[in-house]
Amino acid sequence: MREILIKAPLALAALTMAVSGAPAHADTLIDNVNGITLDREGELIRFTGLVFDDDGTVTQLLERRDDRPKDVDYKLDAKGKTMIPGMIDAHGHIMGIGFQALTLDLSQTTSLEEAQAAIADYAERFSNRPWIIGRGWNQEKWGLGRFPTAEEIDAVVSDRPVLLGRVDGHAAWANSKAMEIASITGKTPDPEGGRIERANGKPTGIFIDSAEELVGRFVPPPRPVDRDLAFEKAQEILLAQGVTAMADMGTTMEDWQSYRRAGDRGALKLRIMSYAAGIDAMIAIGGPGPTPWLYDDRLRLNGVKLYLDGALGSRGAWLKQPYADAPNEKGLQFLEDTQLLNMMSRASMDDFQLAVHAIGDRANQQVLDGLAEMIETFGKDRRWRIEHAQILDTTDLPRLAEYGAIASMQPVHQTSDRTMAERRLGPDRLKGAYAWRSVLESGAKLAFGSDAPVESANPFIGISVAMTREDANGEPFGGWQPSERISREQALAAFTIDAAWAGYAEGRFGSLTPGHRADFLLIDEDITLAPPSLIRSIQPSETWIGGERVWQSGNSSEE
Amino acid sequence: MREILIKAPLALAALTMAVSGAPAHADTLIDNVNGITLDREGELIRFTGLVFDDDGTVTQLLERRDDRPKDVDYKLDAKGKTMIPGMIDAHGHIMGIGFQALTLDLSQTTSLEEAQAAIADYAERFSNRPWIIGRGWNQEKWGLGRFPTAEEIDAVVSDRPVLLGRVDGHAAWANSKAMEIASITGKTPDPEGGRIERANGKPTGIFIDSAEELVGRFVPPPRPVDRDLAFEKAQEILLAQGVTAMADMGTTMEDWQSYRRAGDRGALKLRIMSYAAGIDAMIAIGGPGPTPWLYDDRLRLNGVKLYLDGALGSRGAWLKQPYADAPNEKGLQFLEDTQLLNMMSRASMDDFQLAVHAIGDRANQQVLDGLAEMIETFGKDRRWRIEHAQILDTTDLPRLAEYGAIASMQPVHQTSDRTMAERRLGPDRLKGAYAWRSVLESGAKLAFGSDAPVESANPFIGISVAMTREDANGEPFGGWQPSERISREQALAAFTIDAAWAGYAEGRFGSLTPGHRADFLLIDEDITLAPPSLIRSIQPSETWIGGERVWQSGNSSEE
Repeated sequence: MREILIKAPLALAALTMAVSGAPAHADTLIDNVNGITLDREGELIRFTGLVFDDDGTVTQLLERRDDRPKDVDYKLDAKGKTMIPGMIDAHGHIMGIGFQALTLDLSQTTSLEEAQAAIADYAERFSNRPWIIGRGWNQEKWGLGRFPTAEEIDAVVSDRPVLLGRVDGHAAWANSKAMEIASITGKTPDPEGGRIERANGKPTGIFIDSAEELVGRFVPPPRPVDRDLAFEKAQEILLAQGVTAMADMGTTMEDWQSYRRAGDRGALKLRIMSYAAGIDAMIAIGGPGPTPWLYDDRLRLNGVKLYLDGALGSRGAWLKQPYADAPNEKGLQFLEDTQLLNMMSRASMDDFQLAVHAIGDRANQQVLDGLAEMIETFGKDRRWRIEHAQILDTTDLPRLAEYGAIASMQPVHQTSDRTMAERRLGPDRLKGAYAWRSVLESGAKLAFGSDAPVESANPFIGISVAMTREDANGEPFGGWQPSERISREQALAAFTIDAAWAGYAEGRFGSLTPGHRADFLLIDEDITLAPPSLIRSIQPSETWIGGERVWQSGNSSEE
Repeated sequence: MREILIKAPLALAALTMAVSGAPAHADTLIDNVNGITLDREGELIRFTGLVFDDDGTVTQLLERRDDRPKDVDYKLDAKGKTMIPGMIDAHGHIMGIGFQALTLDLSQTTSLEEAQAAIADYAERFSNRPWIIGRGWNQEKWGLGRFPTAEEIDAVVSDRPVLLGRVDGHAAWANSKAMEIASITGKTPDPEGGRIERANGKPTGIFIDSAEELVGRFVPPPRPVDRDLAFEKAQEILLAQGVTAMADMGTTMEDWQSYRRAGDRGALKLRIMSYAAGIDAMIAIGGPGPTPWLYDDRLRLNGVKLYLDGALGSRGAWLKQPYADAPNEKGLQFLEDTQLLNMMSRASMDDFQLAVHAIGDRANQQVLDGLAEMIETFGKDRRWRIEHAQILDTTDLPRLAEYGAIASMQPVHQTSDRTMAERRLGPDRLKGAYAWRSVLESGAKLAFGSDAPVESANPFIGISVAMTREDANGEPFGGWQPSERISREQALAAFTIDAAWAGYAEGRFGSLTPGHRADFLLIDEDITLAPPSLIRSIQPSETWIGGERVWQSGNSSEE
């Protein structure tokens, strides 16, 4: 796309919707767009031209009949492409995305043998790395019917330690060398909140939840340069997929420092709504309260991420009743009620926002019980976030709206988990599972994300799934529990304006109406008309943040 | 001082010394000053008017005969006051200054009885504080001839724990309650790098160097709001005394976050050259290298502060030969040579600057031995800093220049330590003690600071002492070891342009020549003519940083 400096005076400016006082001397007009955005009430607005000022803030939306402003300095012809707001991912792990991209990826393997081949290949390519670190395996996807074992890594790499995280991050798979370095034996006890898988008393190589750290703590930490590289990689991946903002769920001080370093050197493009990895990190990063918006609305510590349970795949999700496929297990409870209440109070008294991970119905009940107490002191306007809110007891569901809570959900988890969830829960508990429409109809707020790198960060897959509850293969036809499908506008809102609101970013980004940052995508498809199967395959041709083109199809990145 | 908006066109501008390209639309002229600054070569420059631009950067210095620029927007008549660059303190502890100001101050007590009265008074005024924390006591000043004891605090406060730091920060004095909380008994062993003072095997209440932490770790840490309050207090104290920049010696991550919070909310006025409190803090704060200059040249992590020994008063300074007044002691060695070399290499390989605390002649030898190895790899242009460099073996002194080292010294220590140093060292080792002129004549760089809050942060006392080696009472008449006195210009350089160079701030601040930030003081005395006794009493009537008035006599603070 060429930039054309306007030299001749244009016709009289259409000043409808103009923000008064905006400097006129370096405005940019993106013209000839099929413009689509939502306003703060979720109403669809269409436009054909967008003007932003020198600060990258939208000043005007133009309809076809409007005269174009005469005082713009730059004009770009979008040639009829569709312009939509940049996508906001309400739940992701930015550094995780970057580190995943730089580590062994097993997420595409469909069998144990494929995984073993990938491990062997990676070990050969990176022969000087002292540890081989990977993630993304899923024994369910392999149809293995059991966890893999240390010996199955040893068969391809035995001379160096290998540690491989499960797709959901709630289990790790180690080889014998790694267990030797970590001094894991049959006598090693299960840690609180975790479990060492054993066969005949001997550790098999699988470490569940907090047990992962028994081996993980021996992995040398990444150096700051590695972290910065991972951040740059993550940002590149997100911008290429049209994600212009992400809620970072579990920011450590090291993560925060990488974001600040990027901001300090002008390399922070992505907008980050940060949730600290626990209370200590929250205080270390934020001090007496949330940070201001930094770097022109690109970084803010909003609050804290707390964990109440594990994940469904590894049976760490905390259920009210036993697992259908493991009658002696109800999952893992991470915090006592009093611990949770103390943490919630500690955060809330200093205006930190809460983002509480709860997957199982019991964990969701626990956070709702906690919120019932919180609202007594702090009221309902604290944008209490429940992360995942995957399995809700239908009797608990109305309590979300009652306490002013936001369900921060990830549509793609539904398609990934579907058959596993059926096994784990049995038919009776599926009513409140991944229940997007029920959440909306209860009057609660809904924000959508990806949980990347657990799933792909691609938000268009998420929108498509939200509309269909069908996976990439169109399965199951007509959608799984199709009554929980939501409309295209609702899905778009949950990935834009409502995700902004959930992250205290309303009025800053998430919409293209005047006063918001000019964060937008140019795409080939009209997202209001395209069938879900086409939406799923959308690839932005350009990504803009704050009026700056930060990615363009065909380039890995471009200013 | 009134601000007068220039409305009428002035005569043709004197554009000598003008920086080209500076925006003309919001310039400020401070006229009718007795302007004094040093250029980068240390030459004195005089001027009668100073112009700075909208960014707070000096664009012109005007002599009396020069026409005044016609295009300034603001003009201030300084009514003949002397204008000098803001003072740069090359060695201080910013948060320490703030916390000291908020805690019990025993530094003015001249007897144990006075100290006991002050403790009792503070305990009564702050009856709800769980711990009473203070510092500044000096048994030498009290003429006590011994350390004080726990019982001597118990006599005035026995119901709450009390912990009081010695003036040099190298010893702590606890009451019995504090020792009880810390479970200190006769069986508690001396920690490495520290000592519990004992009488008949029983701890007396005095904890030397690393032993301070045996009690100190039980003191509840300050909250972030306390930290921010302490920073604001420190900044206020420094600006009021004409200190516009300080090298912060031993910045923790918590300190750094307070500075950033101040910067993020626009409340950071002071310029901070930061040296992290050890290698871990250096990596946590700086990551892969020093930070950029942040907040318009107000904050940068330059490098790391390392400690090689303790202080002379508590006999922690590491000497080549035994203490004259303690023939079995040579002081404390904090690091083995290999530890030091590892730390030096770790910092230098990532371009972090080294600032190594060395007080005793043996510690100074150790750092110089280390530098001899460092220059093999990293060369001499790394601005290696030796902090204090108090007691140098005269045979080691030439090695400073040989390795390109900077002696970062604190003139007032000389007058505070004089009689104690004579006792500790005896007459033979005093030749290389506080040897400012010898350092300069050896060709090494000299930067001056205060070590506040160990001493007053007032830089004018430092300049006066540097010129006289006499204390506040003019003792000893003619100066202690007067051959080490330096000139007024040399002292001024060490508190301005050379302190900037030592902190990688050259060309940014430390001089009022064009291109530098407009950091200046208005004072009543002509510092080039005033006798040292008058210099000692200088109080700025105004302090400006970056073209903004940040302090004015009569106001505690003003924008």
